Amino acid sequence: MFNIMNISKVIIFVHPLAMTDHAVNPNVSVDCVIFGFNNQELEVLLIERSAGNTEKVDEIKALPGNLIYEDENLDEAAQRVLCELTGLSNIYLEQVYTFGDPNRISKKHDQDWLRSIRAHPEARVITVAYTSLINKQRFNLTPSSFARNAVWVKVKDVPQLGFDHNEILDKALNYLKHKIYLEPLGYELLPDRFTLAQLQKLYEAILVDTFDKRNFRRKILRTSFIVPLNEKQKGVAHKPASLYRFDKSLFHQI
Amino acid sequence: MFNIMNISKVIIFVHPLAMTDHAVNPNVSVDCVIFGFNNQELEVLLIERSAGNTEKVDEIKALPGNLIYEDENLDEAAQRVLCELTGLSNIYLEQVYTFGDPNRISKKHDQDWLRSIRAHPEARVITVAYTSLINKQRFNLTPSSFARNAVWVKVKDVPQLGFDHNEILDKALNYLKHKIYLEPLGYELLPDRFTLAQLQKLYEAILVDTFDKRNFRRKILRTSFIVPLNEKQKGVAHKPASLYRFDKSLFHQI
Repeated sequence: MFNIMNISKVIIFVHPLAMTDHAVNPNVSVDCVIFGFNNQELEVLLIERSAGNTEKVDEIKALPGNLIYEDENLDEAAQRVLCELTGLSNIYLEQVYTFGDPNRISKKHDQDWLRSIRAHPEARVITVAYTSLINKQRFNLTPSSFARNAVWVKVKDVPQLGFDHNEILDKALNYLKHKIYLEPLGYELLPDRFTLAQLQKLYEAILVDTFDKRNFRRKILRTSFIVPLNEKQKGVAHKPASLYRFDKSLFHQI
Repeated sequence: MFNIMNISKVIIFVHPLAMTDHAVNPNVSVDCVIFGFNNQELEVLLIERSAGNTEKVDEIKALPGNLIYEDENLDEAAQRVLCELTGLSNIYLEQVYTFGDPNRISKKHDQDWLRSIRAHPEARVITVAYTSLINKQRFNLTPSSFARNAVWVKVKDVPQLGFDHNEILDKALNYLKHKIYLEPLGYELLPDRFTLAQLQKLYEAILVDTFDKRNFRRKILRTSFIVPLNEKQKGVAHKPASLYRFDKSLFHQI
């Protein structure tokens, strides 16, 4: 006869992964490279993983990423995994590149960690990388799942990461550098009316470079889509600087 | 006792896919979008697949693509699969995008065909798309494997393809359109010295658009990297046109 007590006993012994409603694809994952800007420097969001089945934090940081479910597409997987690990949701994510080196997860340290969370830690995993540039002040980080912590790290200070995540970060950074020439990228990170010094900081942060102030201003003012407002900063201690606005429609016309 | 006769009997009954030296990953494939130019129009390389286990040709064309081996990376897989199906080798392939809709291979016609060539036709397949723009006169097509034929089809005449291959083609085409603004793409398809009419044809083919001749010339001549040669065409029936060359170093300076 049907006995609910027996069923609950069975569930207790099922592998934790099998308790979700979704089957996991063992061969495909997503990784998210989320860039933030602290008004001075470009930062990237990393997670600290739980070490094994303990509460201890693994000393190697990683990008937020995990295997996809069989019943979701790649974009959905990226949104879900990012949210599960860091709490960030409704982020505009763009697919950057797919990484498929046969040995990308086979380093001993990574394998040790994978054995603590995966049903098939040895299965080859191809990962699809996504990226976004966000205003980090607008989002709270609430890490969960195997992420013990989620932290913003300056791009120039990023240490050796797990798997091939340094390579993935480099690729996303290059993607961003190319994009800044094509799209009004990152302007949502500036106030509506901004100074050329603020704009220069943003470009320098994304391009990980420094520019001569005069050259930068000359080049920027040659474009038509950075529009002077005939207004100056107010309430600043230093000499107030002129304010500008970005004209999206003029940009797209070009 | 060891009996070699028994072993050979076993091998006879092994599934054909298992007889290669390489294990196949059931979840990841590559697809190649190879563009050619016939001096007038942009074309794309498609294959005609064998229908089932027969010599009959399936009525639905597809991009050349197949599952990856477990021991090769994605770039290697794209080169191998393209070569196996069409005979093209040493092509400069660039990764464009990865497609992972859970239902991308589940249409009945595609499933029927997959059942004739795959060990696990129902397994979900994520595909990594690669693209290239080649001078098709320089390459011979020698289709093999499950490709009964390889054919150049004008992009504007491409019919309904198998799987999500129309979507993949569109993405590769967009990639090409973006790239033509950033890189001296396709100039290797023109003679070293070319006329502005030839250049316009190339742009029109890639951008699948037509331009006003005067506007096109004015815009092109405003750039510094299309350099006039003070030479004219020779031996042509019509009024000889001025010749130009492309200056790569000037392009990269900009």
